[in-house]
Amino acid sequence: MVEHSGLDIMFLNKYSPGSSSTSSTEAENKFFSKLKMSLIKKYPQKNAETLSAQYGTNLLLVGVSLMLALAQRGPAVKEEHLLTFITVLMLVQLVWMLCYMIRRERERSPVPERDAHAGTRWIRGGLTMLALLSLIMDAFRIGHFVGYHSCVSAVLGVYPIIHALHTISQVHFLWFHIKDVIKKYETFERFGVIHAVFTNLLLWCNGVMSEAEHFLNNQRRRLTALGYTNYTPAEPEHNCNCSTSMCSMFTSSLYYLYPFNIEYHIFVSAMLFVMWKNIGRTLDHHNNRKRPSTRTSILLLGPILGLLALASSITVLVVYLIHVEKSSQTREAAVSMFYCYGVVMMACMCGASGTGLLIYRLEDWPMDTGKNPSRQLDSELLMGSSLGSWLMSWCSVLAVGASQSSPSYRWTCLAYSLLLILEKCVQNLFIVESLYRRCREHVGSEDCPGMVPEIFSVTGSMVPPYDGIVNRAYETQDKCCASMEGEQPKKRQVCSRNNSLPVGKSLNVTPGRNRQILKNITIFLFMCNISLWLLPAFGCRPQYDNLPEQEMFGFSVWSTVLNVAIPLNLFYRMHSVASLFEVFRKV
Amino acid sequence: MVEHSGLDIMFLNKYSPGSSSTSSTEAENKFFSKLKMSLIKKYPQKNAETLSAQYGTNLLLVGVSLMLALAQRGPAVKEEHLLTFITVLMLVQLVWMLCYMIRRERERSPVPERDAHAGTRWIRGGLTMLALLSLIMDAFRIGHFVGYHSCVSAVLGVYPIIHALHTISQVHFLWFHIKDVIKKYETFERFGVIHAVFTNLLLWCNGVMSEAEHFLNNQRRRLTALGYTNYTPAEPEHNCNCSTSMCSMFTSSLYYLYPFNIEYHIFVSAMLFVMWKNIGRTLDHHNNRKRPSTRTSILLLGPILGLLALASSITVLVVYLIHVEKSSQTREAAVSMFYCYGVVMMACMCGASGTGLLIYRLEDWPMDTGKNPSRQLDSELLMGSSLGSWLMSWCSVLAVGASQSSPSYRWTCLAYSLLLILEKCVQNLFIVESLYRRCREHVGSEDCPGMVPEIFSVTGSMVPPYDGIVNRAYETQDKCCASMEGEQPKKRQVCSRNNSLPVGKSLNVTPGRNRQILKNITIFLFMCNISLWLLPAFGCRPQYDNLPEQEMFGFSVWSTVLNVAIPLNLFYRMHSVASLFEVFRKV
Repeated sequence: MVEHSGLDIMFLNKYSPGSSSTSSTEAENKFFSKLKMSLIKKYPQKNAETLSAQYGTNLLLVGVSLMLALAQRGPAVKEEHLLTFITVLMLVQLVWMLCYMIRRERERSPVPERDAHAGTRWIRGGLTMLALLSLIMDAFRIGHFVGYHSCVSAVLGVYPIIHALHTISQVHFLWFHIKDVIKKYETFERFGVIHAVFTNLLLWCNGVMSEAEHFLNNQRRRLTALGYTNYTPAEPEHNCNCSTSMCSMFTSSLYYLYPFNIEYHIFVSAMLFVMWKNIGRTLDHHNNRKRPSTRTSILLLGPILGLLALASSITVLVVYLIHVEKSSQTREAAVSMFYCYGVVMMACMCGASGTGLLIYRLEDWPMDTGKNPSRQLDSELLMGSSLGSWLMSWCSVLAVGASQSSPSYRWTCLAYSLLLILEKCVQNLFIVESLYRRCREHVGSEDCPGMVPEIFSVTGSMVPPYDGIVNRAYETQDKCCASMEGEQPKKRQVCSRNNSLPVGKSLNVTPGRNRQILKNITIFLFMCNISLWLLPAFGCRPQYDNLPEQEMFGFSVWSTVLNVAIPLNLFYRMHSVASLFEVFRKV
Repeated sequence: MVEHSGLDIMFLNKYSPGSSSTSSTEAENKFFSKLKMSLIKKYPQKNAETLSAQYGTNLLLVGVSLMLALAQRGPAVKEEHLLTFITVLMLVQLVWMLCYMIRRERERSPVPERDAHAGTRWIRGGLTMLALLSLIMDAFRIGHFVGYHSCVSAVLGVYPIIHALHTISQVHFLWFHIKDVIKKYETFERFGVIHAVFTNLLLWCNGVMSEAEHFLNNQRRRLTALGYTNYTPAEPEHNCNCSTSMCSMFTSSLYYLYPFNIEYHIFVSAMLFVMWKNIGRTLDHHNNRKRPSTRTSILLLGPILGLLALASSITVLVVYLIHVEKSSQTREAAVSMFYCYGVVMMACMCGASGTGLLIYRLEDWPMDTGKNPSRQLDSELLMGSSLGSWLMSWCSVLAVGASQSSPSYRWTCLAYSLLLILEKCVQNLFIVESLYRRCREHVGSEDCPGMVPEIFSVTGSMVPPYDGIVNRAYETQDKCCASMEGEQPKKRQVCSRNNSLPVGKSLNVTPGRNRQILKNITIFLFMCNISLWLLPAFGCRPQYDNLPEQEMFGFSVWSTVLNVAIPLNLFYRMHSVASLFEVFRKV
């Protein structure tokens, strides 16, 4: 530090009359070597974070602006350009992953530090399934390219090959490195990980855009067939014939695989984001342990009702897709059916979440108020992704309330929209409270696992423990039973009373009963959310047809609202499925 | 806890054959009283937070959907409806503020806890200025209403009156209560504060929308005058004459006051958000102290260059506004001038921020890595509000790069866009690093103020100290000099060496020199950001005219991008002005 301050003076006084030229050259050399070291070795963590986040954001924005230009169908930007850009990004990520793995291999440090909670096995397994479906999609794309190879750009053939390669290596990376807590060569790693995050986010955006475009084109074609509008397909079909017999099969199957591909990319980017957050982090080994799995308990009502919901959703989906294409009468009947089904589902889900909250109120269990950034991320993602459908629902409420035209499903639509808002509010409350509750088991036992792994899990002590010293004696005693300091001293009393209580029959039975109810509720909500993901994912989006909304907001504004709200809603459903799975394991 | 578990059993077994009817009624009564208590008294903090955030978000979304409907100019939703909704919200906020103040008055607790860092005096002073300008605007609105009262809805008269009342009481509230840390009656307070936050946010949205609409109409009128398009005003003028002579004066003056009104509301909502975050918080009294003000040092180059930038901006603004209206030649010249000016400004600002970062690299001062949510909010707001102009710039880069049409300012526009992206990146880095650096003065002295107040300041220990016990002995020793625990043990050594060093001349001089440079840089950037706020705030928005972008993205997409990007950019400039002021006080 002394040396360094001296250097600063030399730098600042370099051109002052007193300094000789020799010492100035020397000082200059020292200055540059010092600067180099300061930039490479001692670059502060916060700056590296900001810089890499800015890099990633700008990558995404370049992609988004390309997509906006593409949506306009001008002559300047074609699909090839966007795909080339994405392919380059994927190639960069591939190279980075390779370098990273080689480095790790070469280092061979005995056991690299790993975040036990990041990317649990079941979430990696789920992602592998989604990745497999993405690979099938790539195969179809390659097949499609082979059929038309004489008249389309080569990029359309290169892209699926690179995407397949990218998918395979990324899944490998997720299985073996997602838990890594990077401590060496941080800058390179940080940029690589954020690059991967935003590449996946861009792939997600691209998927969402293609999917929405395909849906809108179908919609217009359908409306034309029904005689509502006059639609001439905007996308020019290839002006040559397919050389194989499978082309139309490939094209039509592709769109059934899109939803899985979309979910794959958004989940991967969330997991990689956690890895990025973990860079340079100091793990608190006390919390960095896996929780033992919970006892099984009797589950009957929840799964049965959940399966019922799932089955009815699939029925509604099939009936809707068949009837919506026929005549305008059957279409209206199908939409009515959808809204009635929605009202019943929402009411049941509100009831279930509400009951869960009521049980929590009656139990009066202490909350875990410790800092836990991952849990915060989880609840913020839930809230953030609710925004889309809240906006959509309020627009519907307004339109239905004010409109002159009156389709038969007008009031069911109103009820559905209001219940949808309520359902998301109540479900968010239930999930957030479940995630923030202290663990229920092993109370009083020494090994209280305290922290619960979250979905995207940057768990536990993101914050280095207070000033590096943690009073372990105090901590162990208080671990299962900390309440907000100073806030409610009463609560702490209650809590410690509970802690010292012998685990008698009365205490044992009730949590068991409550736990059973909660487990049933959770599994029911879990399956309901899967059902509600299925419907829009496979094309059941009657909102696009709603006349009152189109009248009130105009076709373009209303489609824009839906094009934002529906992908967000899909993410919301998948994310709450993942959260509810965690809640289920925790309860 | 024992009682309560017993209750749970009774509740669950209520309808089981064994329980007698008397005990069941009793249990029911107990159950409801318990539930009531649990809901009112012991509602967990996290849930109340989630619930109130959801309430506020939905308020905003109702307003936004009304605005979307209004933008469509359908027959169903008129401006009156939106204004009525906002008026009701303002009235609710007024009633809440009144109740709150009466309660506080009645309590008369000796000294209520106050967050010393929230809403510094200079920020409250600035807000009072903005509020005064808003009041003038309300007066103009009332005058306008008086002129047209025979043919417009009464709501247009009631709204400015309520708005004026709202502004006055809100400023009073900000002066006397913004620092309050609420500990009692939390639920009522929490909903009130979040209601106030979102009411102001909605008023901001409304201002932004009216302003953008006014600008777009002017733009179209201008283009029609130049012969580019054929514009018939969409908004029907009042179909009666003004009864006073001042109407046109009122209308035209109104739009010069809009920018201030817009900034007023967004800043108030940010301050109230801090108050919301403070609810139920436990202050760490060690950090909850004001910093002594810093020594003044010689400032010359920074202010001079800053004033130069400000003067040239005002010149550019005036010249632009005059020339853009005349012919298409003068218009093109004006736009060219704007871009040239922009390129010079951006280059200077990049240089200044870059120099600042270089000094930081050479100094190697330890960063303050403690948790500080307000600082995080500040840097997130900077990053988040940059998004808009980054997207805009990337769109421009793409359009200029690919377009066929070639206006004379094509390449300056490209350079400007690229420099704008770079400038925001570098400036963000500079501000974030400045906010995250440890205090420079009083190193080694006992009273190191450590934490620095941030702009919207939820400072210091948002997190209650670790498990309630803080090792003060350790903390005091380490306070000025904590580095990331475990991460860079080397740094800690350097740091403690520095700490124990007698404050000799060499150490004293260099930071002084560097500090002077930094202060000059900060004041220069401060004034540049004011300049760059002025231009778009008062109608210098040549981007709306850019042909390449309109060709590539279509008029509606490009206007939408601008309608989002420009208000965000305005907020960004104001927020960085506030941040740079803090940096200036800190350096």
